[in-house]
Amino acid sequence: MRITIIGSGNVATHLAAAFKNAGHAIVQVHSRDMHNASLLAYHVKAEAIDNLAQINPETDLFVIAVKDDAIEPIVAELAKYNKLVVHASGATSLQALQKHTQNAGVFYPLQTFSKTRELNFNTVPLCIEGANEKITSTLNELAYTVSQNVYRVNSEQRKTLHLAAVFACNFPNYLYHIAQQLLAEKQLPFDMLRPLILETAEKVQEHLPADVQTGPAVRNDEKTMASHLEQLQQNPDLQAIYKLLSQGIIKMDNRG
Amino acid sequence: MRITIIGSGNVATHLAAAFKNAGHAIVQVHSRDMHNASLLAYHVKAEAIDNLAQINPETDLFVIAVKDDAIEPIVAELAKYNKLVVHASGATSLQALQKHTQNAGVFYPLQTFSKTRELNFNTVPLCIEGANEKITSTLNELAYTVSQNVYRVNSEQRKTLHLAAVFACNFPNYLYHIAQQLLAEKQLPFDMLRPLILETAEKVQEHLPADVQTGPAVRNDEKTMASHLEQLQQNPDLQAIYKLLSQGIIKMDNRG
Repeated sequence: MRITIIGSGNVATHLAAAFKNAGHAIVQVHSRDMHNASLLAYHVKAEAIDNLAQINPETDLFVIAVKDDAIEPIVAELAKYNKLVVHASGATSLQALQKHTQNAGVFYPLQTFSKTRELNFNTVPLCIEGANEKITSTLNELAYTVSQNVYRVNSEQRKTLHLAAVFACNFPNYLYHIAQQLLAEKQLPFDMLRPLILETAEKVQEHLPADVQTGPAVRNDEKTMASHLEQLQQNPDLQAIYKLLSQGIIKMDNRG
Repeated sequence: MRITIIGSGNVATHLAAAFKNAGHAIVQVHSRDMHNASLLAYHVKAEAIDNLAQINPETDLFVIAVKDDAIEPIVAELAKYNKLVVHASGATSLQALQKHTQNAGVFYPLQTFSKTRELNFNTVPLCIEGANEKITSTLNELAYTVSQNVYRVNSEQRKTLHLAAVFACNFPNYLYHIAQQLLAEKQLPFDMLRPLILETAEKVQEHLPADVQTGPAVRNDEKTMASHLEQLQQNPDLQAIYKLLSQGIIKMDNRG
């Protein structure tokens, strides 16, 4: 396909590279920042533009990978070309596009991307949705050219996935940060925790989290939990997090 | 070395296997449950016993890998042999052993173990502490026969490590569980989140968590957070967790 990428952030960068690697032609890369547009465009052998007036209509697909708030103004501009337009957002409905064009869909990669980190796109779950069955089928076919994990997901389900991703990614990363800070206070290197963090994530690749839960809370080991809370007495914020998550784990155990 | 293992749980099992694989002789495996003692003893070619009266004193090292509360009664029994005694607990001080013997140390593997899951012991961080420099040196040498990640850690630091491990392992696993439950309510498979969970853990193998934090909270994206909280309105426990962790992430960003 001939694909135009709107955006130059983490998601735009990884999507553009994946499409290019799969043999698609990237026509243009648009970013409000010409420097960023040029960097990505050079990488995927496309033209860089920083103004939507410069759009080349000779494309099959517009992929909008920008901040949620910026999606609607952009699709309003692109609708006149009457080409297929998708966004790559977990939190935005398909309807947000359909206000402006029926030639619309969603192409949401459920992964955390960093520009500086290579990753195997072939395993990234792609959540697709089309305004009609023909569009869904087109997006399905496109998705399988870049990943083996393709899911048809409606806007309601995608909202849930986006929320669940916060619990599965953003919050764990913050807890890693807390752990690292606790160690740093005692001059201990974060390297000591890295194998534990990786093993914890690897365990749930094969098991359900409830089946591999460990630690004082799941044993209802009140003595250890009291000792941990005492160690956190200088830090009421961390005490509150410790209590709330431990209570949740204790309830989880009783439930199962 | 000739090593006697007290315990037959996850930690005892992995330690015994690692020692055996490194060429040490496992003399005996003790468990209050003879069936469990036998299973592990068979695996590491040792004698199984379920009574401390059956201890063979012809050993160089007793490794106590049992629940924290059970450590002291056991060391009280073993002290009379005047052999080196270590425990494998993150939450127990060296002093707990020193009440009974000065020939004491700690050999704490900072990892989450499951009997059913093989793991590369060579990367497990081992935290060692001895009652004197000679013991520390002996434990250091022993530790390097089974892992390349050996750290000399005092009891105060080990308490911090044990607490940090709850934030780095037990709490993230619980958040994975919450994410899985949110998906299950919408008939979405946990497989959709597994690549995200793994990538989140892999990212911090090279970076500090604060440098790779993503999600609505770090962007202070109030609209998305409000939408997420609305999705959780049937579940005040999850709302409370969402709010508390998001507030922490917002503060983290302001700090850095």
